[in-house]
Amino acid sequence: MENNNIDIRNIINKKRNKVELKDEEIRYFIQKYTNGEVLEAQAGALLSYIYLNGLTDKETLSFSLAMANSGDKLDLSEISDQIVDKHSTGGVGDKVTLILMPLIASLGLPVAKISSRGFGISGGTIDKLESIPGFNTEISLEKFEENIKDIGVSIINQTYNLAPAEKKMYRLRSLVSCADCLPIVAASLMSLKLASGSNKIVFDLTCGRGTYIKNKDDAKKLGKMLVKLGNELNKKVGYVITSMEEPLGNSIGHILEIKETIRCLRGNMPQDIGDVVVALGSVILELSGRGKNLNENSKVIIDAINSGKALMKFKEMVAAQGGDIKYIEEPESFAKAKYIVPVYSTESGNIKSIDADVVGSIARYLGAGRMKDDSEIDKTAGIILEKKIGQSVESGGVLAYIHTNDENKVLGATQNLKDAFKITNGKVLVPKSRVLDIM
Amino acid sequence: MENNNIDIRNIINKKRNKVELKDEEIRYFIQKYTNGEVLEAQAGALLSYIYLNGLTDKETLSFSLAMANSGDKLDLSEISDQIVDKHSTGGVGDKVTLILMPLIASLGLPVAKISSRGFGISGGTIDKLESIPGFNTEISLEKFEENIKDIGVSIINQTYNLAPAEKKMYRLRSLVSCADCLPIVAASLMSLKLASGSNKIVFDLTCGRGTYIKNKDDAKKLGKMLVKLGNELNKKVGYVITSMEEPLGNSIGHILEIKETIRCLRGNMPQDIGDVVVALGSVILELSGRGKNLNENSKVIIDAINSGKALMKFKEMVAAQGGDIKYIEEPESFAKAKYIVPVYSTESGNIKSIDADVVGSIARYLGAGRMKDDSEIDKTAGIILEKKIGQSVESGGVLAYIHTNDENKVLGATQNLKDAFKITNGKVLVPKSRVLDIM
Repeated sequence: MENNNIDIRNIINKKRNKVELKDEEIRYFIQKYTNGEVLEAQAGALLSYIYLNGLTDKETLSFSLAMANSGDKLDLSEISDQIVDKHSTGGVGDKVTLILMPLIASLGLPVAKISSRGFGISGGTIDKLESIPGFNTEISLEKFEENIKDIGVSIINQTYNLAPAEKKMYRLRSLVSCADCLPIVAASLMSLKLASGSNKIVFDLTCGRGTYIKNKDDAKKLGKMLVKLGNELNKKVGYVITSMEEPLGNSIGHILEIKETIRCLRGNMPQDIGDVVVALGSVILELSGRGKNLNENSKVIIDAINSGKALMKFKEMVAAQGGDIKYIEEPESFAKAKYIVPVYSTESGNIKSIDADVVGSIARYLGAGRMKDDSEIDKTAGIILEKKIGQSVESGGVLAYIHTNDENKVLGATQNLKDAFKITNGKVLVPKSRVLDIM
Repeated sequence: MENNNIDIRNIINKKRNKVELKDEEIRYFIQKYTNGEVLEAQAGALLSYIYLNGLTDKETLSFSLAMANSGDKLDLSEISDQIVDKHSTGGVGDKVTLILMPLIASLGLPVAKISSRGFGISGGTIDKLESIPGFNTEISLEKFEENIKDIGVSIINQTYNLAPAEKKMYRLRSLVSCADCLPIVAASLMSLKLASGSNKIVFDLTCGRGTYIKNKDDAKKLGKMLVKLGNELNKKVGYVITSMEEPLGNSIGHILEIKETIRCLRGNMPQDIGDVVVALGSVILELSGRGKNLNENSKVIIDAINSGKALMKFKEMVAAQGGDIKYIEEPESFAKAKYIVPVYSTESGNIKSIDADVVGSIARYLGAGRMKDDSEIDKTAGIILEKKIGQSVESGGVLAYIHTNDENKVLGATQNLKDAFKITNGKVLVPKSRVLDIM
């Protein structure tokens, strides 16, 4: 009988019966769930009915705003009203943010990135950057803004109380098997962007085995929701749909991915990473009003790599946040795992698939991911893929290498990693690009 | 990946997708929810999908057994394999258990009742009996069994760890607006009977405003599920469906209901209470193999009242559990509330309805119910209805009296109680009986 007769049981009932929730009911739920008055069981029930019955556009917008307003909000409008942000729905071996941030900044567009640590099988950008000795991701907000003004790019760990409701909803989605509840995903993503003050946002909507969006259709639906929300909220939103069936690039693990990032920035970029970088970069330029069309923009992105501009900006960014650029210049200086063990193929043929979910789980098991929220990460641990989908292998040939400091994990990991590769005698049709769609 | 690959997220997914759960999956859920490994959010989600997608007969049976096996179990087989139990799904002013227990015992059938305290708007039989000075509901199990052997009847508070999973599920149902999730209600009720060792069970399936089953159709569905479960579990199960639109009898509140119970046992029984007592009692006799048919059994029940046998057994029961029978012989000795205030009608006409839910809530507000799990109850507080559905009232006539010790609550309670009565100028069709169906 409190709060103008709004009651969580009634809200649950309405969503069960497919009745549209009012804005104040959604605000009530988010506020009370964040402060603990709405109980976990009740939030789990409501989310389950949302999973089955969906949200209207109006409800999705209300969820976005309510989550964005659940904590602090950054205001970067003094720096620029053109702040660029790139957000991925996660994947295995995904180091695109590390490449794109300096690249976009090198083209004169301000990049402000608020990122988080890794959980589950997706590595976190913050964790990866911290494997560069000295790199400080917990700089002050003043320093963050100063860096953006001075060199056009900065990144901080999400230690501010930005959209705390989103954090709770993220955990809840995972607990109740609703990670792919699309309207809540859309509202959550947009709430983070609202709270962090970016204006030009491109989403990398990964789909496939290695992430929580299982197919292209769902990714497309999500993309459309995000664009619609962007229109309502006066933000320019674009998206690229990319495949996350096999890991992205050849390296999985923190130091291993930083080293692959450096190779990419030096112009030695695996094709699949290049596809994704060029697509996302081109969309960012378009959202920012640069260039004539996506095709022209692609050339600008490629040139930023080939000219060395992106690498130079990366070094500036590392230096500005206290990182030792010696490691960027001499990547062989990075620490290495004690055990680097080849994984041999026991058959000959063509690689048909490499399960990104399994590869991610093995990398995590080897030490490259957190098993619990507060686990330590082994920055040297991970996996190098020697073969990717479509390539051929001989029996006895090397499929991959595992990197670990735990001798006891070698046997299980090599066996499981071998099983993550499906090999066929037939021909394998390799998609032309990881990029499945661009809006 | 634990426990033979059973995983709560997978269980949630299956129920969402209308896939029948295996017995071991249901056992896993109940066991892990009881010990806290399955989280509230996950249980809330699973229950929500069960609410929408139902349970098969096989699943319902698995839930019954899993909940029954979640804690201690009583074995009363040494006393009798004919232990009678009567269970109501709750209501407002429902004192039928208090009347039936001694009545049935007076006919030579052993009655073992494990009961609980009241929560919400339904008063608890344990709380009501404890308003008789000295009455001890927390006697030892030995004393409980001894009483049943000696005088044929005893009652204890459910302090044993009987079906703890049922307690958690009961609370969960209420939290997530699934109180009327019929297959879970059926499984829960049956799990309690399995754990408490009774064999002949009659359910009073109340339906209407004053309880969680909202209509006769749902009650009928529930009754059929219970009979089916009884067949599977080798227990004789019967049910009576009764209306709980208006409160039962004229008194609501602990001492007030004990006093009405005594009046009933003395033969001065309001018709609606009489209907329910006779119907339930007749079914119990039938389940126990007594009598020729329900009609003949009715006469036996009525005679047990009119002969004074039931009242005598009630006194024996009270005395055997330490209660002071002076209060039974002289009910005017009971404590009274400080404020007894009439509620006047402001219009003339016939009483069309008296909302049992509202009346129950007002009684609770006056002190007759727990606002929180550990609240104290005011045993003297409550409501006396002077008018029932179908009766006529003049403007200025008394509809009811409120009994309270809190002067501040008088004004609000009288106004709200007046509003709980709907009065019409037209004729009111009064159902012939509270009993809507008997199986």
